[in-house]
This record gives sequence, C-alpha cells and structure tokens, in this order.
Amino acid sequence: VTIGLPNAGEIEAARKRVYEHLRPTPLLHYPGIDALVGTTTWIKHENHHGVGAFKVRGGVNLAASLTDPEARAGLFTASTGNHGLSISFAGKIRGAPVTVGVPEGANPSKVAAMEGLGAGVVTAGKDFDEAREWAMAEAERHGGRFVGPTEPELIAGVASYAAEILDELPDVDVIVVPVGSGSGATAVCLTVRTRKPEVEVTGVQAEAAPAAHLTWKRRTPTEAAMETDAEGLATRVPFPNTQSVLQDPEIGLTDFRLVSEESMRDAVRLLLEHTHNLAELAGAAPLAAALGMRDHLAGKRVVLVLSGGNLALPKLRKILAD
Amino acid sequence: VTIGLPNAGEIEAARKRVYEHLRPTPLLHYPGIDALVGTTTWIKHENHHGVGAFKVRGGVNLAASLTDPEARAGLFTASTGNHGLSISFAGKIRGAPVTVGVPEGANPSKVAAMEGLGAGVVTAGKDFDEAREWAMAEAERHGGRFVGPTEPELIAGVASYAAEILDELPDVDVIVVPVGSGSGATAVCLTVRTRKPEVEVTGVQAEAAPAAHLTWKRRTPTEAAMETDAEGLATRVPFPNTQSVLQDPEIGLTDFRLVSEESMRDAVRLLLEHTHNLAELAGAAPLAAALGMRDHLAGKRVVLVLSGGNLALPKLRKILAD
Repeated sequence: VTIGLPNAGEIEAARKRVYEHLRPTPLLHYPGIDALVGTTTWIKHENHHGVGAFKVRGGVNLAASLTDPEARAGLFTASTGNHGLSISFAGKIRGAPVTVGVPEGANPSKVAAMEGLGAGVVTAGKDFDEAREWAMAEAERHGGRFVGPTEPELIAGVASYAAEILDELPDVDVIVVPVGSGSGATAVCLTVRTRKPEVEVTGVQAEAAPAAHLTWKRRTPTEAAMETDAEGLATRVPFPNTQSVLQDPEIGLTDFRLVSEESMRDAVRLLLEHTHNLAELAGAAPLAAALGMRDHLAGKRVVLVLSGGNLALPKLRKILAD
Repeated sequence: VTIGLPNAGEIEAARKRVYEHLRPTPLLHYPGIDALVGTTTWIKHENHHGVGAFKVRGGVNLAASLTDPEARAGLFTASTGNHGLSISFAGKIRGAPVTVGVPEGANPSKVAAMEGLGAGVVTAGKDFDEAREWAMAEAERHGGRFVGPTEPELIAGVASYAAEILDELPDVDVIVVPVGSGSGATAVCLTVRTRKPEVEVTGVQAEAAPAAHLTWKRRTPTEAAMETDAEGLATRVPFPNTQSVLQDPEIGLTDFRLVSEESMRDAVRLLLEHTHNLAELAGAAPLAAALGMRDHLAGKRVVLVLSGGNLALPKLRKILAD
C-alpha cells in the first residue's frame, strides 16, 4: 500500500520534467458549455495528450526519477487503462521494459495503445484487484518495480495540470475533477491549497462505484460495489494516501458528488456537440456533476477537468445510438 | 476576387500575432495510425483550437490588422462554417461586429458556435455562392468590409501551423493537407518552399467536389459539381490567388489527390479509434488520402493535417451506425 505523498519541492521539480516530453494542455471556453452550466466555464483538455489522458504527466515524472538499475529491471503495473498507458509511455521514454496486467474485458483501444508503446499487456484476472495481485507477484519474481496508481512521483507529475489552471486562470472559483484512484484530485488539492486555498475543489465519482466517495464521507475506509461503465472511475477499494489528502479538513475536497451512468453518457454527447472533443465517461463526469449543481455554480468561474478521451468506439456508438 | 498573397515579412509578423490569442497545436504520433499508413506518421492537431479548426489562425491575424474605422464598420462574410467561425472569433477579440451569411442546411453546430462568439448569422441562399453575394451586398450597404476565405491576412495567419510543423519535425518528408478554398495548402506551400523546398506537399479534395483539383490539373479555372458532404472541401469555384500558388511549378503542390465520401467517413472512424479525436470530414481527408498512397509513402516521415474537428453530432451518429 502506497502511503507517501510528494512535497512542494518534488511537485515543482516534476513540473519541469513533465515539459521535457509534454506540452501544457489548453484551457478552453465554449459558449455552448457556458449556456448549459449557466456560468463561465472552462474545459481543461487533458484529453489532448498523445496517450489521451492526464495520467501520462505522472508517468513522465516517474520515468525521470528511475535509477538505471530500476529501469533495466522493468516496471510492472495493473490498470484498467490510462494508468497503464502512462506507465507504458514512461517505459518507452526511459527505455524500461513495461508489463501491464489488465482485467478481462479491458478497453481494447487502451490495450492496443499500450502495446503500440511497446508494453507487454497480459489479461490477468477478472477485475483490477486480481490483475494487481498478478502484477505485484510478477514484479517480485523478476526483481522489477511494481507501480501503483497513486505513487508520489505520479501525483507530483499530475499536479502540473493544476498549476497550469492556476497560471492561466488565477481567478478560478471552482475546479471539478473526477476521482478514480484519487491521484488527479489529490494533485489538484495539493496545488490549489498552497497557491489559492479558497478555490473550491469538487470531486466526482460514479454512483455505481462509490468506494472513494463513501470513504471520504464516512472518514473510514469503505469498499463498495463497482459496477460503473466508466473504467476511469472504477475503484472498488479506496487508496489511503490520496484519501488522506481528500479528507483533510484544511486541504481536502470541498465537495464530493456522485453522478449516474446516464448523466455521464449525456455529458459525452454534450461535449461532442459543443466542444467536438471525445471524452471517456470519467472525463465527462465533471460536466455531468456541474449540470447537477447549476444553482451552486451560478456566478462562479468554473473549470471542468476533461481527464481523458479514451472512449472505445463500440461504447461511443452505443452512446450515440441511445 | 482576391488576388493578393502575403509576403515573407507578413507571414513572420502574423505568427507573433497568432500567439497572442492561440497556442501552438500538438503534432502527435500514434502507433495505430503508423500501422495503418505503413510509415511514421504525425497528426497536426488543428482540431485542438477552441473553435475547432485551423482557420482561426487567420482570423486572429486579420483582427490585429484592422484599423479602428474598419473594426467599427464591421466584418461581413459568407461561410459553410469554419471560415465564418474564424471571422466571428476575430470580431470578438477585436470588438468588431460580424455578420455571416450561411447557406441553407449549414452545419448547426458551427452556426451555434458563431452565434456563441457574438456573430449575427443569417441564412442567405441555397449555396455558398448565393450566401457570398448576399454578404458582399450587405457589406456594401453598411460600409463594412467583406472578408473572403483567401484574403492575404488569413493565409499569413494560417501559415503559422506550417511553421510549427517544420520547427518540431525538421526532417518531415511529406505533408498532406485538405484543400477547400486552398488557404491552408497555400500557407503550407509558401512556408515549406522557403524553409525546406524538397518537402512533398500533397493536397486532398473530395471526388464529389473536384473544382480545385481539376483547376490545378488543367491549369485553367474549372467549375465542377459540388456534392460532397465535407463542407470544408465544398468548393464549386476555384480561388485564383490560392491556385496561383498551388499550380506554381516551383512552390506549388507536389501532388493532388481525390478521395471518396466513403473513405473520408472511414477515416473519421479510424481517427476516433486510434487517436480518440473527432475530425470533420475535411479533417479526415488527409488520412483517407494517405491510406490510398501507402506504397508511395513507405519509409517517409508523413504529417497529416487534421484541419478541423467540427463534425455535427447527427453526421457522426450516421457515420458510426454505417
């Protein structure tokens, strides 16, 4: 279990490393989204990365922090998609072999992209937790490093997008961010609270996979059923290190909302219509949440984190046919 | 009829102006696209602009070059979509009123976006040419400026994307660019020929709207039927100033390909699957062309210009249902 968190110096150092391989993503404003949300709203386009999701920022920072023996021994991870893509990208730029265990039925477009980056992808188990056990055992067997989704180096790299939001929109009032493992939301909290503590940070999770939300609400680790179609939000067991931040009364989440599967599918359609960007369900969750809190958001300057765009084509086809 | 072209100094000056409002777009590499095209291939993401298409670069430059009286008198244009969006954006950042004449059946998502930027949009005629006549008459009546799609200021601004390609990928061998009015292809030719003249520039047009292609091939102005669904390629009458560049044996297009409607729809699907980006039909045309010239492209470093992403939702739904 990862319990570490990056400190301010590590977050600052990570930002420089991130820009050696990635560029800042756009923060864009669409009249159609403004009208829907009922207030001035920006989309943070983490879907514009080549691998299609914010997590790659963490992978780049991890790659830079590996020792040569660590790189040679290889990286092992388990993922439903974007975390695995991030580590695959890290391995490619660092020259480290990467093995990713994925659960049965993993998003085929994400699997193909990991393989395209040179990773070995193995279907290992019925769900994320079985795949993780397999990957941890493989790492042990080969003397490589197992990389969970909330390692401090990953959170430090991911924090660069939060810094970009504050640089570009210093008078932001609310940031709405999806919560899966919580690395993105934690990175936003750590960044915002040191630079502009009064910004509201609202987490979003799927009603059909509320483990992180229940844990946050009850202030005690809580497992929950995991039945969402949004693999980016599909957490069955909460992560202690990110929860320690999200729950913190000083630096944690201001609010934590749940959204329905249908509202995420609607949000995918609305983002396609009004921004012409493809969002995966997790990436559309902030818009789904914002549409449910219009009264609260009225008059505020709102940023929705479009965390990733890796929606598989059959799922998109189904969403549009509904 | 516009006959002017920007000179090298105007292109250089435009680039600085463009970055006051827009940022460089990513040039990204996707393993899945490499495999399809059969060689190392990059996508130039002009769909990542807030208004979703490359033409906005020209609008920003035009806005900066307006005198105060010109701005007050307002801008008038006719457009099937992206050019009108570009001029609407220009008006917004310059504080100039904008009137856009669109033909019946214009892409509703583009019309909504123009209105969202504050432009007045008027359905004026059965096709682009009728809308253009209306807009020219309105400009005359109100003492404002009519802005055609190939004004020198627009080409100069658009050239910034070609410069970004050469900066980021100096050893590019082939650039494939869609041709509607020809402003994008002209901007690429003008830029490439001064910096790395041996780069192949391949234009792409729809078989179902081949006026620019026939004009280029025959070296004489040729009108043609205009039946494509790709409004970004829907030219019935060729534009003399861009044709003067595209036909030039020294600086013009190396090759000019036609693609079928079906191949563009396939390319939209393939881009969604492998890059998770939404392309409009014109924006997908370079991939469609590249898939038809794999033998020629083998071993070369290829850039496909994804010129815009403003595909209307009903059209996407239909493409995915096919």
